[in-house]
Amino acid sequence: MIRFKNARIMTLAGDNPFKITEGEVWTDGDRISFVGTPTDEQLKNTQFEREICVMKNLIMPSFKNAHTHSAMTFLRSYADDLPLQKWLFDKVFPLEAKLTGEDVYWFASLANLEYLTSGITANFDMYFMLDDYVKACMDTGFRSVLCGSVSGGAERSFELEENYNKYNNTYPLISYRLGFHAEYTCERGLLENIGKLAEKYKAPVYTHNSETAKEVNDCIEKYGMTPTALFDSLGIYNYGGAGFHCVHMTEQDLDIFKNRGAYIVHNPGSNSKLASGIADIKAIKEKGIGIALGTDGPASNNALDMFREMYLMSVLNKLRENDAAACDANDVLYAATVGGAKAMGLDDCDTLEIGKQADLIILDLKQPNMQPINNIAKNIVYSGSKSNVKLTMCAGKVLYENGGFTSADAQEIYKNVQKHAERIQSEVSG
Amino acid sequence: MIRFKNARIMTLAGDNPFKITEGEVWTDGDRISFVGTPTDEQLKNTQFEREICVMKNLIMPSFKNAHTHSAMTFLRSYADDLPLQKWLFDKVFPLEAKLTGEDVYWFASLANLEYLTSGITANFDMYFMLDDYVKACMDTGFRSVLCGSVSGGAERSFELEENYNKYNNTYPLISYRLGFHAEYTCERGLLENIGKLAEKYKAPVYTHNSETAKEVNDCIEKYGMTPTALFDSLGIYNYGGAGFHCVHMTEQDLDIFKNRGAYIVHNPGSNSKLASGIADIKAIKEKGIGIALGTDGPASNNALDMFREMYLMSVLNKLRENDAAACDANDVLYAATVGGAKAMGLDDCDTLEIGKQADLIILDLKQPNMQPINNIAKNIVYSGSKSNVKLTMCAGKVLYENGGFTSADAQEIYKNVQKHAERIQSEVSG
Repeated sequence: MIRFKNARIMTLAGDNPFKITEGEVWTDGDRISFVGTPTDEQLKNTQFEREICVMKNLIMPSFKNAHTHSAMTFLRSYADDLPLQKWLFDKVFPLEAKLTGEDVYWFASLANLEYLTSGITANFDMYFMLDDYVKACMDTGFRSVLCGSVSGGAERSFELEENYNKYNNTYPLISYRLGFHAEYTCERGLLENIGKLAEKYKAPVYTHNSETAKEVNDCIEKYGMTPTALFDSLGIYNYGGAGFHCVHMTEQDLDIFKNRGAYIVHNPGSNSKLASGIADIKAIKEKGIGIALGTDGPASNNALDMFREMYLMSVLNKLRENDAAACDANDVLYAATVGGAKAMGLDDCDTLEIGKQADLIILDLKQPNMQPINNIAKNIVYSGSKSNVKLTMCAGKVLYENGGFTSADAQEIYKNVQKHAERIQSEVSG
Repeated sequence: MIRFKNARIMTLAGDNPFKITEGEVWTDGDRISFVGTPTDEQLKNTQFEREICVMKNLIMPSFKNAHTHSAMTFLRSYADDLPLQKWLFDKVFPLEAKLTGEDVYWFASLANLEYLTSGITANFDMYFMLDDYVKACMDTGFRSVLCGSVSGGAERSFELEENYNKYNNTYPLISYRLGFHAEYTCERGLLENIGKLAEKYKAPVYTHNSETAKEVNDCIEKYGMTPTALFDSLGIYNYGGAGFHCVHMTEQDLDIFKNRGAYIVHNPGSNSKLASGIADIKAIKEKGIGIALGTDGPASNNALDMFREMYLMSVLNKLRENDAAACDANDVLYAATVGGAKAMGLDDCDTLEIGKQADLIILDLKQPNMQPINNIAKNIVYSGSKSNVKLTMCAGKVLYENGGFTSADAQEIYKNVQKHAERIQSEVSG
């Protein structure tokens, strides 16, 4: 058991999720075993393998990154400040075509380290070469929900179903959700088959949805309806799921999400950097739709930093609504933690309560940007930084502490990432 | 002399300011004495008091925060997510009315620490109780350009002139520029007197300008012209200067800035959080107007973090222009460093060249968010973080290194900030 003592605690549970109490958090294996102030009796009867004095800093649930493409780290800062189509077709796709499984292993390992530095312990990852990706997560000790990413013709649904059965209930820390790339990269037959899979497994489905105005307009031209309406007509959202981005949604689209219990995964960094627009968080919240936050991949963000996403979510929506009171910091913090866990189906990774997974972080409040302490939740969202992340624990294991990684050799990963990224670049230019 | 060796160097000087070379930087007293690869002869003939191995990390000029109100740290997270007028009149003004000089000393000291953690070595600060503020900067070793902040009636120009003569050429690291709060808080007689002071001292003038649409519309209603046109009609910008914010500018306003050689200080964090709008950086750049970056005060941002401002400057303008190619990262990095130094009149604090002030930082490239190294300048703007700031040097003195402060007792400052902030809050509520 590990004992975190002398802590400020924000459980994110119950009716007052942002309330700060003082006390202790204990973990036993991969679970939380105690939250509160222990009696002398309890302390006397408990053996700890480690005691960590939190020094009145904050212990809280870790962040959940509800949409990303981890292995795209190799494209970071390779092709920025280009028009969207040129970036995608001239830069991203040609390099991605050269990827090997070993590349994906190193590139995803780098991303996992970056998540940990930002207090993220789980991601919802959409990419390919899954065996290599899973190995990267296993080696880092990082929790990941794989998202189906099929595209193309109807027959690709077999691969999706195969992966669904292969990667669920097989690896610790790994699960798999039905999903596909996007409406504009899938034939109708594939979408129909995915609707059938949703019904067969009574499972939620996840996909890029309404990221750009062009995507929505093209879909309306092709099918006479929006992507969301199309998916719903095929039963794809019958058991919930989520849309990634959801920047250009109609009121009818939002009603579908509400009725199906689907989540909206907001990606403000990527939507800004690629000039896609600002999702209408006010309308989404008013409908009562669940909201999660994601970084999207490092080619389009370019950081994997939940503090950045939280700040952007709030201030972009203040700009959008022309109202400094819009998009309260508390809603943002909830989306980045509990909202993400729920959207990803990680129902026992959301709060600090006994029996939940020990996925938690310590934030250093004794840095200038977190002082004075007027309101800790607002400090986190509005002035917090990844530099405040003192410790990141996933499934009861400390993976990051005081700037160092316990489960990975960072220098080795950097060296290999650089080598493999340069090889891909030379293959394309050569 | 201090020797930084085994470094990647970005000087920000010359025709290729973002070029990376490998070599050394030496400082002698408060100045840079060498940049490049030394000969054995040079090394043999030089005595160093300290040698710092940069380990192939990046040494570059420090950031300059061209608009802030440092002492407002006490209002951080005290009153967020409120409509602008309610925030200002019900929260900010009543608490500010209770400020003592000692309060300002502690609150500004906290801000100075925060600047250092973000690689900022100089700010352009607009506030009051200047003796206490200057003492905070002297104690921290932080460079500051004080900005006149008068408002009210014509007679206040005496105070401005008095301060101009009192604080210039008196304290090391401190200078003072003519300035006033804003059009909407100054009577016409005061603005006229400030125009006369600009002429008398042949000096640039600085002020809040066109931050909100309401400010501009009210000015047009009152004077029949925009704030910029009004200032120009009174000779206020005859020797240059700058406008802080400049969110709502006409083409004619921009022509005035161009013709007068005045700078635009962009504050994307504050302009977003207060829902003021997005300044038209594309038009400003096309006019050839100099651009600097500022955090604004911690009550309206709420962080004092140049990495946040840089990212926001770029992505907000991509959103504004609906163009992922808008607002190139290189322009952003230039504004945050050289642009700021020039706008503030710190002409010898802008680049890494022999004879310039030794105001510099080391950025740790061996963290996940800076890998791989495809393009360092873009890494800094798009995935960089204050967590990458390894060392901050101002005027040849190392003030921040590996997370610790050399010139200040941070815990003592946090304790006093909390105590003084709580006293003010209790005075207002009590």
